[in-house]
Amino acid sequence: MKNPALYAAIDLGSNSFHMLVVHEVEGACRTLAKVKRKVRLAAGLQPDGSLDAPAMQRGWDCLQLFAEQLQDVPTEHIRIVGTATLRLATNIDTFLSTAEAILGHPIRIISGEEEAGTIYEGVAWTSSGTGKRLVIDIGGASTELVIGEGTSPLLLNSLHMGCVTWLNHYFTDGHLSAPNFERAITAAQQTLAPVAAAYLKLGWQACIGASGTVQAIQEIMVSQGESEQITLAKLRLLQQQAMACGHLDRLQLPGLQAERIPVFPSGLAILIALFDTLAIDAMMLAGGALREGLVYGMLGRRQECDAQERTADSLIARYQLDRAQGERVRKTALHALAQTAADQDDLALMLGWAAMLYELGLCIEYKRAPEHAAYIISHVDLPGFTSAQKQLLAALLLNQRDELKPDALCQQSAIPAEQAILLVRLLRLAIILCLRRTRGTVPEFGLSREGQRLILTLPSGWSHQHHLRASELQQEARRQTEQGWPLEIVERD
Amino acid sequence: MKNPALYAAIDLGSNSFHMLVVHEVEGACRTLAKVKRKVRLAAGLQPDGSLDAPAMQRGWDCLQLFAEQLQDVPTEHIRIVGTATLRLATNIDTFLSTAEAILGHPIRIISGEEEAGTIYEGVAWTSSGTGKRLVIDIGGASTELVIGEGTSPLLLNSLHMGCVTWLNHYFTDGHLSAPNFERAITAAQQTLAPVAAAYLKLGWQACIGASGTVQAIQEIMVSQGESEQITLAKLRLLQQQAMACGHLDRLQLPGLQAERIPVFPSGLAILIALFDTLAIDAMMLAGGALREGLVYGMLGRRQECDAQERTADSLIARYQLDRAQGERVRKTALHALAQTAADQDDLALMLGWAAMLYELGLCIEYKRAPEHAAYIISHVDLPGFTSAQKQLLAALLLNQRDELKPDALCQQSAIPAEQAILLVRLLRLAIILCLRRTRGTVPEFGLSREGQRLILTLPSGWSHQHHLRASELQQEARRQTEQGWPLEIVERD
Repeated sequence: MKNPALYAAIDLGSNSFHMLVVHEVEGACRTLAKVKRKVRLAAGLQPDGSLDAPAMQRGWDCLQLFAEQLQDVPTEHIRIVGTATLRLATNIDTFLSTAEAILGHPIRIISGEEEAGTIYEGVAWTSSGTGKRLVIDIGGASTELVIGEGTSPLLLNSLHMGCVTWLNHYFTDGHLSAPNFERAITAAQQTLAPVAAAYLKLGWQACIGASGTVQAIQEIMVSQGESEQITLAKLRLLQQQAMACGHLDRLQLPGLQAERIPVFPSGLAILIALFDTLAIDAMMLAGGALREGLVYGMLGRRQECDAQERTADSLIARYQLDRAQGERVRKTALHALAQTAADQDDLALMLGWAAMLYELGLCIEYKRAPEHAAYIISHVDLPGFTSAQKQLLAALLLNQRDELKPDALCQQSAIPAEQAILLVRLLRLAIILCLRRTRGTVPEFGLSREGQRLILTLPSGWSHQHHLRASELQQEARRQTEQGWPLEIVERD
Repeated sequence: MKNPALYAAIDLGSNSFHMLVVHEVEGACRTLAKVKRKVRLAAGLQPDGSLDAPAMQRGWDCLQLFAEQLQDVPTEHIRIVGTATLRLATNIDTFLSTAEAILGHPIRIISGEEEAGTIYEGVAWTSSGTGKRLVIDIGGASTELVIGEGTSPLLLNSLHMGCVTWLNHYFTDGHLSAPNFERAITAAQQTLAPVAAAYLKLGWQACIGASGTVQAIQEIMVSQGESEQITLAKLRLLQQQAMACGHLDRLQLPGLQAERIPVFPSGLAILIALFDTLAIDAMMLAGGALREGLVYGMLGRRQECDAQERTADSLIARYQLDRAQGERVRKTALHALAQTAADQDDLALMLGWAAMLYELGLCIEYKRAPEHAAYIISHVDLPGFTSAQKQLLAALLLNQRDELKPDALCQQSAIPAEQAILLVRLLRLAIILCLRRTRGTVPEFGLSREGQRLILTLPSGWSHQHHLRASELQQEARRQTEQGWPLEIVERD
């Protein structure tokens, strides 16, 4: 019996095989299982281009595992693709006939360009931002390089270099020496040379990295207390740290997982060459790539809409938020923002999302709902939002009512603290003004700002007709003022 | 424009007025607003039985606030009740005519018996457990005393004593002296005397306290690092601590909120008398009382079903859990438990709920889903579960997969650690055995237990046909064994 809400994507990569099983809930994907096995297929690629028997067997053994769970997924909801090593192997038919028999499902060997396009789709679905982005995915035997804008890839390439093949070529002796790194980096630069000019000419605004190499580097950054952003200086430092270990057998870095160790130096060398040749400033980790591209391709969602909007829509549906109330608070908060001198697009955007999502914590419990909302936002997958934006959203939601917790506003790194404080002050006022949760009940108000001081002007006589909100606004004025953020509530004459 | 999903309950108590506004979502109540004002109506009750003008005005001012939010709630979804002080006041019509005009809604003055019955309904909806329970609600001017079983009250009384009236009678001078306490306690004992025998004769298994006095005491316990259970010894200690402060004006206890201070000693004296006269061992705080009873009464839910079951059903709906999968895991886990020597009802119950709810964390994100599930269970309203049971559930969910975290199992206080460890081991096995999420895919298995050692017996040849689960079971056997909990996986001959 198949479960019609299940979808599965499998990629037979050169380093690992991965299976992703998702469940469609309220229009959103809920990940049910991720299974990954280090098959290191590329290590079995012989000089004559054939895949050796032990590598094939490792692959088949892994597919035996995947096959078990695949039985419950409708056939039309399964995508299985093979990439670089399977593209190269001359005896691919031998591998495929057994593999397809095990899986009971056809495997498609996709071209490098198709792989790059699908990776871009996965990134576009899980990242936000305007302008062109450069997407880099370093696999076991190939590296995909894409520039795209919105959901459209503009320039695609798949290069014959990867962390497994580079390990076999340049770190055969296991020495983490300067000459080995130098040879690996130079070879990667040479591989890049024919295509580099086209990328530099087209240009990009943001660079996003997918794959295990980039993820491993980010995990090391985090465990060393660094920001998640990857720069050339940090990569060079990692190279020094790796070289200090002397040999692959002794390679240990805080945050580096044991199974990643063998292909870490080779992946690092390729990444250094990419940063160097393409003059990349900084790279962020993608929220998804090839497998996510395969799944989203099957779901065939509306491609035109922005990733942040899709994410917010999905949260509203999954957490059963009152959309009309969220929109009312958003409209009110943005009306307030427009009257301050600080009406910038990015501030308005984040204030708007905070307003739409402010009641997230109610799904857990009322009393500490602001904390719960901040917890959920901090941990939920938020395709389209950067981690800094997540932090800011969490800080805004945490401060939506009750005592002010300014620390969270100062600790977020998306916008300056004083801007975050302004957003929170406006959000809190908007929530109080919208307390009746009903259309046509929000008063026409004015908001003026003189430095830190905010003056909220209400219609004449309004407070005498709206006792609860008037009482809450007075309390709010006291709270903000005591915090050193003066707030006055006045009425028009 | 009214919002048809909103419900509101207001009670005009002798100490505070409260408004509760809830939103019905997927058959569950989501609290949207709680507004409370210390009106201290009872303090305005004159010797001639009339309510004085300042007290009435405080009441009307508060109702002005409530009225604003009430406008959006459908008339048939509103219940407003007055209790002890309004029952006693001789000039009640004066108060009511203005109050009803402000609210635009009738106010029902309910009898003490009806109040007691509604309180019991609120407690029954939010508490679980079998057998008879004694429910005590100490209000500002009356104390309700009910013994009930399931959803049926068996013995109801409303007594003329409360924390505001006892303050006015026995702590007029504000002195927290031994004689004042003694007089207050003795008077409460005398008030109880006529009914005590009936309660003692009927008996009860569990005692639950509602109202601000009990809540304040529990908050003090928690802030002093004590367990939440209230005992006579703890109450006597609190009396000593209060007496050490000498006077109401200087009364300060860690965890005691400022606005509770005036009525704290009088409420404490009444509670001491209750514990003493009725020989109460221990009391737990109710999850809800009068207002919740009013709301649940309007919702008119199926009364027959158990509070824990209702709570689990509501979580499954709100968090969109896969019920069939939860039931599959529950059945498998209980089948395993039945084969150990430890098949006790309470263990089976908690293991069953953990199985039904194990995927709660997926609504946030896959990777740390067990942590998210534990977070949600720790914070969500769980009517029918005690805090110790919540802790146990959270510990089980936290340990559902990946590395074992035995600390959480040892720290919970619902059952002995070794039983919690057994439940977690069975839950983890059941989750792996049910990995295919499909009917008819769970193998027939045997489980035997020799001390700490568990032996899972699978059908002959099963592992060679079910590679993923066999691989996961092998990994699980390693994990449990390394933890000092030996687990063997064998196949029948």
